[in-house]
Amino acid sequence: MLFYVEMKVKLPPEMDPDKAAQIKADEKAMFQKLQKEGIWRHIWRVAGQYANVSIFDVQSPQQLNDLLMQLPLFPYMTLDVRALCRHPSSIWDDDR
Amino acid sequence: MLFYVEMKVKLPPEMDPDKAAQIKADEKAMFQKLQKEGIWRHIWRVAGQYANVSIFDVQSPQQLNDLLMQLPLFPYMTLDVRALCRHPSSIWDDDR
Amino acid sequence: MLFYVEMKVKLPPEMDPDKAAQIKADEKAMFQKLQKEGIWRHIWRVAGQYANVSIFDVQSPQQLNDLLMQLPLFPYMTLDVRALCRHPSSIWDDDR
Amino acid sequence: MLFYVEMKVKLPPEMDPDKAAQIKADEKAMFQKLQKEGIWRHIWRVAGQYANVSIFDVQSPQQLNDLLMQLPLFPYMTLDVRALCRHPSSIWDDDR
Amino acid sequence: MLFYVEMKVKLPPEMDPDKAAQIKADEKAMFQKLQKEGIWRHIWRVAGQYANVSIFDVQSPQQLNDLLMQLPLFPYMTLDVRALCRHPSSIWDDDR
Amino acid sequence: MLFYVEMKVKLPPEMDPDKAAQIKADEKAMFQKLQKEGIWRHIWRVAGQYANVSIFDVQSPQQLNDLLMQLPLFPYMTLDVRALCRHPSSIWDDDR
Amino acid sequence: MLFYVEMKVKLPPEMDPDKAAQIKADEKAMFQKLQKEGIWRHIWRVAGQYANVSIFDVQSPQQLNDLLMQLPLFPYMTLDVRALCRHPSSIWDDDR
Amino acid sequence: MLFYVEMKVKLPPEMDPDKAAQIKADEKAMFQKLQKEGIWRHIWRVAGQYANVSIFDVQSPQQLNDLLMQLPLFPYMTLDVRALCRHPSSIWDDDR
Amino acid sequence: MLFYVEMKVKLPPEMDPDKAAQIKADEKAMFQKLQKEGIWRHIWRVAGQYANVSIFDVQSPQQLNDLLMQLPLFPYMTLDVRALCRHPSSIWDDDR
Amino acid sequence: MLFYVEMKVKLPPEMDPDKAAQIKADEKAMFQKLQKEGIWRHIWRVAGQYANVSIFDVQSPQQLNDLLMQLPLFPYMTLDVRALCRHPSSIWDDDR
Repeated sequence: MLFYVEMKVKLPPEMDPDKAAQIKADEKAMFQKLQKEGIWRHIWRVAGQYANVSIFDVQSPQQLNDLLMQLPLFPYMTLDVRALCRHPSSIWDDDR
Repeated sequence: MLFYVEMKVKLPPEMDPDKAAQIKADEKAMFQKLQKEGIWRHIWRVAGQYANVSIFDVQSPQQLNDLLMQLPLFPYMTLDVRALCRHPSSIWDDDR
Repeated sequence: MLFYVEMKVKLPPEMDPDKAAQIKADEKAMFQKLQKEGIWRHIWRVAGQYANVSIFDVQSPQQLNDLLMQLPLFPYMTLDVRALCRHPSSIWDDDR
Repeated sequence: MLFYVEMKVKLPPEMDPDKAAQIKADEKAMFQKLQKEGIWRHIWRVAGQYANVSIFDVQSPQQLNDLLMQLPLFPYMTLDVRALCRHPSSIWDDDR
Repeated sequence: MLFYVEMKVKLPPEMDPDKAAQIKADEKAMFQKLQKEGIWRHIWRVAGQYANVSIFDVQSPQQLNDLLMQLPLFPYMTLDVRALCRHPSSIWDDDR
Repeated sequence: MLFYVEMKVKLPPEMDPDKAAQIKADEKAMFQKLQKEGIWRHIWRVAGQYANVSIFDVQSPQQLNDLLMQLPLFPYMTLDVRALCRHPSSIWDDDR
Repeated sequence: MLFYVEMKVKLPPEMDPDKAAQIKADEKAMFQKLQKEGIWRHIWRVAGQYANVSIFDVQSPQQLNDLLMQLPLFPYMTLDVRALCRHPSSIWDDDR
Repeated sequence: MLFYVEMKVKLPPEMDPDKAAQIKADEKAMFQKLQKEGIWRHIWRVAGQYANVSIFDVQSPQQLNDLLMQLPLFPYMTLDVRALCRHPSSIWDDDR
Repeated sequence: MLFYVEMKVKLPPEMDPDKAAQIKADEKAMFQKLQKEGIWRHIWRVAGQYANVSIFDVQSPQQLNDLLMQLPLFPYMTLDVRALCRHPSSIWDDDR
Repeated sequence: MLFYVEMKVKLPPEMDPDKAAQIKADEKAMFQKLQKEGIWRHIWRVAGQYANVSIFDVQSPQQLNDLLMQLPLFPYMTLDVRALCRHPSSIWDDDR
């Protein structure tokens, strides 16, 4: 099932650069693993914001929760989560 | 280029049912035409809301504007529009 | 899977009383059917508000969406929907 | 009587991990004690948020207040509290 | 137990004056009955607003809910309801 | 004249416990002095919040201002202040 | 004593022009009477908004309330009211 | 001097089409007159919204106010107005 | 020309008292200089808030901007700025 | 294509003055380079706020994003970004 997730990231400007780089590298590795598995189905950067719009394809809200809370950037994020379903006018099934 | 558009629809409950049905049918036809052309690339219903999350693939903000303002449901919508771009961590180009 | 749904109802005060009574009766019948089926698992009135806090147990976001949008009071409601999952500290499974 | 309580937790990311673990352990112990006593009647994690939706069954607003303010995570929480009552359409008494 | 209730009233300016006068008279009668019974313990007009701040002394959230929803002005009100309890610094018991 | 004041307190969790205890003790002493003088006429704890709802009886907005800004907890408070007056439906004068 | 009052006016565009003109004329007459009496001490139009910023000099919150609620435009206004007092840095007494 | 003005327009969907067309034609004529005079210096449509971002070059806030309140669409607009000045980093004077 | 400015001040409670006293003294000196020059035409304390409502009489938005940004408390303020003009109903010119 | 960008800057008051001066100097240099290239087409200071209203002329949302995120003040900014297009009533093409 699909979930819309918007993530806004706010890293404290005074964070140690090495620590920030490590968190971002860990985040990227975890993201790319989930992207390859088809779970993090889409991600777009919101232009001009340290934020993204994502679509997750998960087995359950439980799985979504466990994934999001393990993201290295989670403690620095504000999240907006909404369950999605197929739009009745859609001619294709891809967006179910 | 891609745009995120969230559409919330509020039809007055006392609207004439025939008029409402006609507007919805016109909207659906226009949506499916744009969907087939690859312009309205994604649409999802937000579960439990008369609302959708959409991704548009257009040539310019001008084209996006002209499309949205011609939607039959436009006078009844509240829209949230954001320009998107490729996320730097993404391994694929589909979401550019 | 479980969803939290808060429903705020706003009926226009000038609505024809018979029509309002009919909508409320239809709503009640649909609610009680879903309550007996175990789908509308909990409902509480928020004290002093024409509003309720509900817990739904559904097969999918799609089912939740279809149920909510068919409620007779849906055109008069503002809804807040959130997917739930088991709390890691809980000692029982009932709230999964 | 029943109260709806939503708790959003915001632990400072730079908190000492041992201190954070101790607070969470204390919170869990207190929660499970109240859960067994039937006071903290329900708890659900909001999927993808460090937040929960809870239902308390207490003798008075005073008891609710005293319980909530003693929670180890209270200084890090934003709380939304609403008194509940029986929904007039409900066929059962469990949710009174 | 005590509840804080703030009531903001918005009567449509085009309402029939006789109907408005009747609703206000019914509201006043019901208010004064509850005031004499000690249930509507305090009421103050917020200066310059069609709004009041009230303190109710009721047996339960259920009683509060049933009283508020029967107020003749209820369909025209926006309500803010909060359970109160004794302040730990208070030297008297009147505000329990 | 009467004023409604809502005070929300936010002490930094990492504050030195002795300093916090001293501020609270000073606050309590000042509150009880004003309570005995009939100036701080009512105070209620909002159940489950580090907040209170208060009614002040003062000679002027100037006096109210000078009292509030000298409260030991003032630097940690968010205040909502509203002038009150007698409600036209009230049968008694106590709430003038 | 002084009060800051911001008034935002929203007349329905479809209002009968004669009725609108009458209300505005009544409002202007009442305003000028209060202005001459020194009660409506200041008024400024907020540039580009159907709104004003006003300073009232009244005997009590009660008087302010009674004046504001009798304004012909009151049913079409949203009001923001705040009690004022002398600023401690001010060298003059005019703004007491 | 320059002012930023954002105008959001909300025409009631049920407005008589001839009346709507007349208002829009009057608005366009007035806009183009002011554009030629250099007063309405810039206008941009916000893509996908019935809204614009404008820059006015006027002699005074008074002139701005009188212009905006005479716009045929003014009763249907929500306006956001901000005075502008030269940015200290700017290398040119055009944006003074 | 006149501007309405509301200033809300938030000094960190842990600020060094000497530094806070110095900033406030500098602010007061600058304020009184501008008050005597007729530029800071009015100032009122909002009762019970560390905030004021002020009216500035300046030559241009540029002058207003330069004055405000040089205030010693500027880094600790949240400002709300609105251009004012003469109200069409006013019988005097003082509030132009 | 054009984008409206509003930038609100919040530098921590306790920042080291040399560091703050360096960031501002870097920001100014980057701004002036983009201004000369015609990319940062307009900038205005919002009078009395540490904020600006800007118009960017870029090749794509991607370019806008990359420019904004490299601004030295980006970590201290809150940004509001909106795609613009030509207003249908405009008689000139400059604002396309």
